[in-house]
Amino acid sequence: MSAIEDLVTELSRLPTIGRKSALRLTYHLLKQPREQSQRLAQALATLSDRVRVCERCFNLTEEALCSVCRDPRRDASLVCVVEEASDISAIERSGEYRGVYHVLGGRLSPLDGIGPDDLTVSALVGRVGEGGIREVIVATNLKLEGEATALYLQEQLSPHGVTVSRIARGIPVGGDLEYADGVTIAQAMAARREMK
Amino acid sequence: MSAIEDLVTELSRLPTIGRKSALRLTYHLLKQPREQSQRLAQALATLSDRVRVCERCFNLTEEALCSVCRDPRRDASLVCVVEEASDISAIERSGEYRGVYHVLGGRLSPLDGIGPDDLTVSALVGRVGEGGIREVIVATNLKLEGEATALYLQEQLSPHGVTVSRIARGIPVGGDLEYADGVTIAQAMAARREMK
Repeated sequence: MSAIEDLVTELSRLPTIGRKSALRLTYHLLKQPREQSQRLAQALATLSDRVRVCERCFNLTEEALCSVCRDPRRDASLVCVVEEASDISAIERSGEYRGVYHVLGGRLSPLDGIGPDDLTVSALVGRVGEGGIREVIVATNLKLEGEATALYLQEQLSPHGVTVSRIARGIPVGGDLEYADGVTIAQAMAARREMK
Repeated sequence: MSAIEDLVTELSRLPTIGRKSALRLTYHLLKQPREQSQRLAQALATLSDRVRVCERCFNLTEEALCSVCRDPRRDASLVCVVEEASDISAIERSGEYRGVYHVLGGRLSPLDGIGPDDLTVSALVGRVGEGGIREVIVATNLKLEGEATALYLQEQLSPHGVTVSRIARGIPVGGDLEYADGVTIAQAMAARREMK
């Protein structure tokens, strides 16, 4: 039964989905009206065709600028730097942050050969150099590499006369921002401290 | 970002996948080459178009008869009755069973209004009535409803002079066949007892 086998194989490629889960999901879909599989197929097919990165902040978007950068009510003088676009969803869920973002695309990791040129650091320095930004909140994850990345960004950005702050350690140390709840993230944002 | 939102919504409809998991899977797919999403979309779209039920045993198939019914090396005089087509995968994984199958499409459940007419019981009785079947192994799950279904099938089939057996309680009582490992299933098949 190759159509079933094909789908099981493709679902198994996804993280956290093993072969047994993939089989269960496939049989589940076979019991649903076929429209459900078709809608999921359509959503997947559309995804990579329509989604690209924001020209300004590297968030994911379907336009030239992302919905945050396009929103005139957001405070463009306050920039929150995150590792991944998925971190933005986490911060937006907290509902407290009114500034804009900058997606690094990862963190400095010399052991994995990831240096500043592999991230969007120069674009961030460029944004700050253009003026109009008063504070950059570094919200990289609170692990060793995230901290090292924050220190590096402070070194690069401070000469431009901008305040560089770090989110407070309200988020469990060693934890991923993505798993934090909204209240914790809001507290961590409020208790941010300037990096000197 | 509606393309992302669409996919998250569709993925969240699947069992065991909540909103956060759906979001993680979506961001994962966005980081992969777009071919991966396309292949998954294709597999989903093909699924319901090509898969139907076997005319003889109600297993899932892409042909008129399923791969087990088509296989001349299988012992067609031995029929294993299962609740769902997914149970067949579980039994096939054990690698010990050489007979054929019959998929009931569920189990008797008076409280949910599921009676014999909602299952493929009459088709099974018809297969046995045609002759050539010496034994029917009832492999419905070892829960109350699965046991009641087994007793009902025994009543229906015994008058036709066929041996009706029940898989042994090697599978944990109250457990689902689908989660059992191959060795346990093989033991349960070997230690089956005749129902009298």
